Amino acid sequence: MAKQDRAIRTRQTILEAAAVVFDERGYDAATINEILARAEVTKGALYFHFPSKEDLALAVIDAQAEATSALLDLPGGCRMQRLVDLGMVFAHQLLVDPVLRGSVRLTMEHGSAALLHRSGPFTGWIELHTRLLAEGKERGEVLPDVVPAEVAELIVGAFGGINALSQSVSDRADLERRAIVLYEHLMPSIAVPAVLARLDMAPGRGARALALATLEPVSA
Amino acid sequence: MAKQDRAIRTRQTILEAAAVVFDERGYDAATINEILARAEVTKGALYFHFPSKEDLALAVIDAQAEATSALLDLPGGCRMQRLVDLGMVFAHQLLVDPVLRGSVRLTMEHGSAALLHRSGPFTGWIELHTRLLAEGKERGEVLPDVVPAEVAELIVGAFGGINALSQSVSDRADLERRAIVLYEHLMPSIAVPAVLARLDMAPGRGARALALATLEPVSA
Repeated sequence: MAKQDRAIRTRQTILEAAAVVFDERGYDAATINEILARAEVTKGALYFHFPSKEDLALAVIDAQAEATSALLDLPGGCRMQRLVDLGMVFAHQLLVDPVLRGSVRLTMEHGSAALLHRSGPFTGWIELHTRLLAEGKERGEVLPDVVPAEVAELIVGAFGGINALSQSVSDRADLERRAIVLYEHLMPSIAVPAVLARLDMAPGRGARALALATLEPVSA
Repeated sequence: MAKQDRAIRTRQTILEAAAVVFDERGYDAATINEILARAEVTKGALYFHFPSKEDLALAVIDAQAEATSALLDLPGGCRMQRLVDLGMVFAHQLLVDPVLRGSVRLTMEHGSAALLHRSGPFTGWIELHTRLLAEGKERGEVLPDVVPAEVAELIVGAFGGINALSQSVSDRADLERRAIVLYEHLMPSIAVPAVLARLDMAPGRGARALALATLEPVSA
């Protein structure tokens, strides 16, 4: 059992080191040697957990899917608030989670993309947004001319872009502010006025929504 | 003179080869040897025009600034139509210009970013959008609560993101459609209703605006 715990910790150490190296260098330029040096583990330990660089990258990318699944349990019945919370919590998590940052870099890159199915996490985000928009439409929260799949791809794509710009100019220090500007300008053409008026898109919403998620059961 | 022409053609051949390699591999993984093989020029010719990989990348990035300056002359007095045309023409040009595609890849990457001042073209796009929004505001085209610099960064960031998503899922075949969805959902919170109602955001607008630019003088 203690041995298993140690293996889990070693795997996590390697995963975090790989994420940092992928985030700094990108997939193609990242080397196993640099990941080994950062993780301070033996080559044998690394290859035991991850047979190849591709396996490492896929595991880092999977971390984004895990973060996404946590977001499924965000609290509140209002689907449009949950939609906004997806981005606000993600912006908050990107600041505190290096594995998530590595995953995002790998997802945004292209190039040797075929190998890595890098559109995977995009697809997960798009499906989640599509579902919230479709449910919001049934509940009368969403304007009638909104096409859920189309708007879902718009939000996910646009968020990816403001994230890249924020990283380039401020190392993501201004990502929350940029996310707020995005939602303030997009939500009026998505949500009906009565819903729009009570959406919380204020600074700190990401941390607040996460705190609520751990306190409250999800209401229907 | 014939010799000069040849030098200009050789430089352009190298620049286009470098752009394709940067677009496919990214900055870090791109090699001079691969660029040489694609351009089919001698190493001496390459180093005569571009002393280093960094110089090549900077020249490819500059091509984006050149494309941007061409967009300054888009026709029509309506600033919000010109704002929309920036994106619609850019989407059109990305499909037909490999050097522009390489430039965009280098701009979207980070990593060895400090060297390359990759936020450069972003800055140019943001300034251009900010100016059009400020002028539009003076002309009564823009809603009073719009902050030009903030909305300029939103549009440029969001466009970069939908471009990356479009490239990842369709090799940019659906970029124009995605750009239209972006403008249809953003412009209602930017332009006053009377201007919004007569904006051309229909398919083919990029090619139409370019054709107009070559036919008409810019009106005030």
